[in-house]
Amino acid sequence: MPADPIAPPPRLLMGPGPITADPRVLRAMSGPLVGQFDPAMTAYMDDVMTLYRQVFATTNEQTMLVDGTSRAGIEAALVSLLEPGDRVLVPIFGRFGHLLAEIAERCAADVHTVEVPWGTVFEPEVVEAAVRDVQPKVVAVVHGDTSTTMCQPLADIAEICRRNDAILYCDVTASLGGNEFLCDAWGVDVATAGLQKCLGGPSGSAPITISERAVEVINGRKHIEAGIRSEGDSAHGTRIASNYFDLAMIMDYWGKQRLNHHTEATSMLYGAHECARLLVQEGLPEAVERHRLHGEAMLAGVRGLGLHVYGDLRHKLNNVVAVLIPDGLDGDVVREALLDDFGIEIGTSFGPLHGKVWRIGTMGYNARKDAVLTTLAALEQVLRAEGAAVTAGGGVGAARERYAA
Amino acid sequence: MPADPIAPPPRLLMGPGPITADPRVLRAMSGPLVGQFDPAMTAYMDDVMTLYRQVFATTNEQTMLVDGTSRAGIEAALVSLLEPGDRVLVPIFGRFGHLLAEIAERCAADVHTVEVPWGTVFEPEVVEAAVRDVQPKVVAVVHGDTSTTMCQPLADIAEICRRNDAILYCDVTASLGGNEFLCDAWGVDVATAGLQKCLGGPSGSAPITISERAVEVINGRKHIEAGIRSEGDSAHGTRIASNYFDLAMIMDYWGKQRLNHHTEATSMLYGAHECARLLVQEGLPEAVERHRLHGEAMLAGVRGLGLHVYGDLRHKLNNVVAVLIPDGLDGDVVREALLDDFGIEIGTSFGPLHGKVWRIGTMGYNARKDAVLTTLAALEQVLRAEGAAVTAGGGVGAARERYAA
Repeated sequence: MPADPIAPPPRLLMGPGPITADPRVLRAMSGPLVGQFDPAMTAYMDDVMTLYRQVFATTNEQTMLVDGTSRAGIEAALVSLLEPGDRVLVPIFGRFGHLLAEIAERCAADVHTVEVPWGTVFEPEVVEAAVRDVQPKVVAVVHGDTSTTMCQPLADIAEICRRNDAILYCDVTASLGGNEFLCDAWGVDVATAGLQKCLGGPSGSAPITISERAVEVINGRKHIEAGIRSEGDSAHGTRIASNYFDLAMIMDYWGKQRLNHHTEATSMLYGAHECARLLVQEGLPEAVERHRLHGEAMLAGVRGLGLHVYGDLRHKLNNVVAVLIPDGLDGDVVREALLDDFGIEIGTSFGPLHGKVWRIGTMGYNARKDAVLTTLAALEQVLRAEGAAVTAGGGVGAARERYAA
Repeated sequence: MPADPIAPPPRLLMGPGPITADPRVLRAMSGPLVGQFDPAMTAYMDDVMTLYRQVFATTNEQTMLVDGTSRAGIEAALVSLLEPGDRVLVPIFGRFGHLLAEIAERCAADVHTVEVPWGTVFEPEVVEAAVRDVQPKVVAVVHGDTSTTMCQPLADIAEICRRNDAILYCDVTASLGGNEFLCDAWGVDVATAGLQKCLGGPSGSAPITISERAVEVINGRKHIEAGIRSEGDSAHGTRIASNYFDLAMIMDYWGKQRLNHHTEATSMLYGAHECARLLVQEGLPEAVERHRLHGEAMLAGVRGLGLHVYGDLRHKLNNVVAVLIPDGLDGDVVREALLDDFGIEIGTSFGPLHGKVWRIGTMGYNARKDAVLTTLAALEQVLRAEGAAVTAGGGVGAARERYAA
């Protein structure tokens, strides 16, 4: 017998992502397919480019999707920018900084890192000193790292990169849509994201934007693949080490040339289109404000329950908070009770924070008052049942106060 | 103003793929999300592994999804198997053979190719001579190449690979589900596919199966990434040049270890699950027979219209036929009229066949009598309007005869 049909249990996903997708996004994804070069499809591709320019706050012509999860977007950016031996500087303030360094190493780049303790972000001088020391071709940095809940200010770092003639790549997967990100105003060269955080969609499509000077670097390595190459197409530079992630070819597929590359993941594109359409309709500043509001309500709420939070709150992402697990409690037992009894998921943690904090998200479709209050009400019940000292009504009450303010 | 919501025009996609997705697959994809390590999610991942073992006709433990289009599956297989300098032999009989060679080159492998003319397949002796000559670590071959409509017999090639101690990788994107593919019985080591052909889903997820001896090769290169590495995890061999496509880590994510890698593309997994579930429910031999029936009806139909077909029909894929464009007709004008007036898409062609043949598919959800007869009826009207000599009722009539037989 084959397996049972897909019938997922109802879940309120209040972890660091993936979060519950907006039903409007899932509905868009259920649209019937059209052909790869159907005029309707290429029009949707053009719409996606226009919409994501607004989401990234950029006029970059080269703004599109990479067909894979957010990690695919990161790898496409780094493998297309970095030739073997190129120096890259990765300022690391959490797990995802380590991921950038790891991916850059696999590109055979000469990887240099600087680190600050988890729970903090970089002062610009630290990055500037490292940039002067390393003289990197590329600086690769995470904007918001859900592992620590920190959001790295980028404007100064972008300015430092410009002054030192380095390309700035930013992973904005966890931040985009819920925290201010101004690609052009700050001077970021390449940024990549995913749908499963503040954009309110499922994992599986990675929006990317690429500045003109980064396009030059990437097109300086263009090698059109055999099988679709025309006479007169010449190859330049060191070939990009991946075909699937070759942004030079992906740009030619999304651009007027419409050169065949992969077969665009149509349903994911429909979803990515709807994620961006909803954000643009709401307004990006308004969406950031919404994430700030519900993030602050959740922060007030967990404190109102008598819990303590982790990290430098001046630099906390709007959309996630790390909550210290009270002494004597097993964090996983609490998470399992929340899931089993209330259908609510909150997150565990990685590395040095494993077993020490829960990560509670308020993002995308779940940056909503009812989601915040329901989570706080359930958490209070579970903590009490597990024997923790909690203030009765303290979580929901404190969140309500924030909403009333 | 943001773009209009997604509202795709109705299309009957009768090209070489992507084809119209089965509405049941799209419905499954609209299911609400669950967390990445939710027991419901890991159970669905396990179901997917079980289902695709049946689809690939294998007992390979390592049978899963790569999160990307079919091309992502190919690259994951080749970059995980091939170290720089490894010899790989690619027998090429169409565009997608060139793609395998191209991807293997980007892996810095020592790539050797043999070619036969388009429209034909390899005799085993030709492959055997090349294998003896090259002594490759890996033989990489396409099973069904939609560019020529040919389906390469694999059993003998697999036997040759075993005898010569080579790993056999097969790209079964275009063939799986619609043509017999017996992974274990033939002795194929690694096979990858996509959903957008005979599996009746959208592009964006790449099923893969990996034999034990290929797993050994891949795990011989395992380097768990910093950030999730535990003490005692040791690194071996030459690190796989891609993080995203590192099958050693992807296997640990799908396996009991559940080591965090990418965030699984949940909606695409729901879709891949339903594609396989429907195929297994129908029965793989029955699905192949269905593709044979409707493919033969389409072949009879285009001939009944007075058209000629391309290639060695003894080796034609069940699910696609290449039809010679009659002299004096502009193939693109016919395709556009079919799309504009009837909402039916048929395919153009690549490389040496560009402008010479149309490719008409009968696959997945569209391997159906009404889809075949509607396409033939519309094609007759368009050809007549364009001034071609066609037999009135000849296409539908011939197809009906095949159905009656």
